[in-house]
Amino acid sequence: MARESRRPDTPFWVEPRHVLGDRLTLDADESHHLLHVFRAVPGTAFEATDGEGRLYVCRLESAEGGSAVGRIEAVSEGAGELPFPVHLLVGLPDAGPCESIVEHAVPLGVASIDLAVAARSGRPALEERRVARLERIARSALKQSRRSRMPALRSSPSIEAGIAALPYGGLRLVAQADGPTRIERPSDSIENVVILAVGPPGGFIEWELGVLRGAEFAPISLGPSRLTTETASISLLSLVRNSLL
Amino acid sequence: MARESRRPDTPFWVEPRHVLGDRLTLDADESHHLLHVFRAVPGTAFEATDGEGRLYVCRLESAEGGSAVGRIEAVSEGAGELPFPVHLLVGLPDAGPCESIVEHAVPLGVASIDLAVAARSGRPALEERRVARLERIARSALKQSRRSRMPALRSSPSIEAGIAALPYGGLRLVAQADGPTRIERPSDSIENVVILAVGPPGGFIEWELGVLRGAEFAPISLGPSRLTTETASISLLSLVRNSLL
Repeated sequence: MARESRRPDTPFWVEPRHVLGDRLTLDADESHHLLHVFRAVPGTAFEATDGEGRLYVCRLESAEGGSAVGRIEAVSEGAGELPFPVHLLVGLPDAGPCESIVEHAVPLGVASIDLAVAARSGRPALEERRVARLERIARSALKQSRRSRMPALRSSPSIEAGIAALPYGGLRLVAQADGPTRIERPSDSIENVVILAVGPPGGFIEWELGVLRGAEFAPISLGPSRLTTETASISLLSLVRNSLL
Repeated sequence: MARESRRPDTPFWVEPRHVLGDRLTLDADESHHLLHVFRAVPGTAFEATDGEGRLYVCRLESAEGGSAVGRIEAVSEGAGELPFPVHLLVGLPDAGPCESIVEHAVPLGVASIDLAVAARSGRPALEERRVARLERIARSALKQSRRSRMPALRSSPSIEAGIAALPYGGLRLVAQADGPTRIERPSDSIENVVILAVGPPGGFIEWELGVLRGAEFAPISLGPSRLTTETASISLLSLVRNSLL
């Protein structure tokens, strides 16, 4: 832990294009953090992730002009990642809950989050600058959780558009009070993708639930109390993660 | 939803001592909310919970002096509650994460939360006024989630003190990277209490883990990435809730 020692235990971010051969270069912000917050000197060990599934174990080689250059000693693929992608389609809530979903869902291994406009969202799709803000939160959560693959974030204009943007097939579940509480793991085939849907505050309307049923989403109950959109998202993701690992 | 109609769909809070025969009286704040935010008039239906497991279905009878008096038409016991109590012993984190844990764990049905000082907490136990603040958050979350039994909140001075304050026996689990990912439901007896332990930021130290093992906490893994104290708490609670329901 940072509190106990100055050796960083959280990977730094490196742009994929800044990895060349067995050297990588951190950007200005990340270099500053490594050199000034952690007071790294040539020889200090650190880790970096490119957000595309690679985790690099490095040693600081030079820091000329404030730019940290590391020599790569080892690379691992898919560090901290689930063996199957889990996509989350959420009925768009307020700004605070959106951030809360990203903060918790990223460490829990989500592959994509679509904060899609539902009938009861009562607001338009997120503008680009809002998605960019959520991406910064996601990047920070990715590093903290020692994951290595940056999830995709988007805000579809409707639930149908959100469904259309999802990968084909997979185990598809929608949080619904009257569903069963266990996840039936498909017995005849190994599903290699999981897709979860959670309603906006107030829930999906009947018509949306019909569309989800038509797209083969099976209901799953998250228990006897009423959950907010953000608590339900985190809860369903947690459940799937451990049920299928 | 409040957005669609002025009929309240969230129960109000009523102090148990203000329930007399088939009448109950809301306090000043709750009366104001019912009478002015929801513009209730005599005859308007509403619900109230006493935080001790009872949910009352009422109709507003009078509102003299700004005090809402309801006639009780039905009572249910244990509305929104899990069939087994789940206690959460968490290594005390910062103030923000403490609030986040309460916000999400209360809707998920927790029976008690102990934000106990662990070796890596780096701070003393929460003062009374901080616990009182968390209680206000818990009460609001309880109503929103339509639960009816107010969880106990405390902040023990150590993990050992936290363990000593727990009920005897039960299914005991501690979040730990090297544990199994499934919960083994005890096959020979129905456990009627569940106790979960989650480390502070940086995790429990070896000595604390030894104490927990000695107190019969079995390890459970929450997956391949590193979770914050708050995400791990919500994740473990979600998992237990659905695995045992």
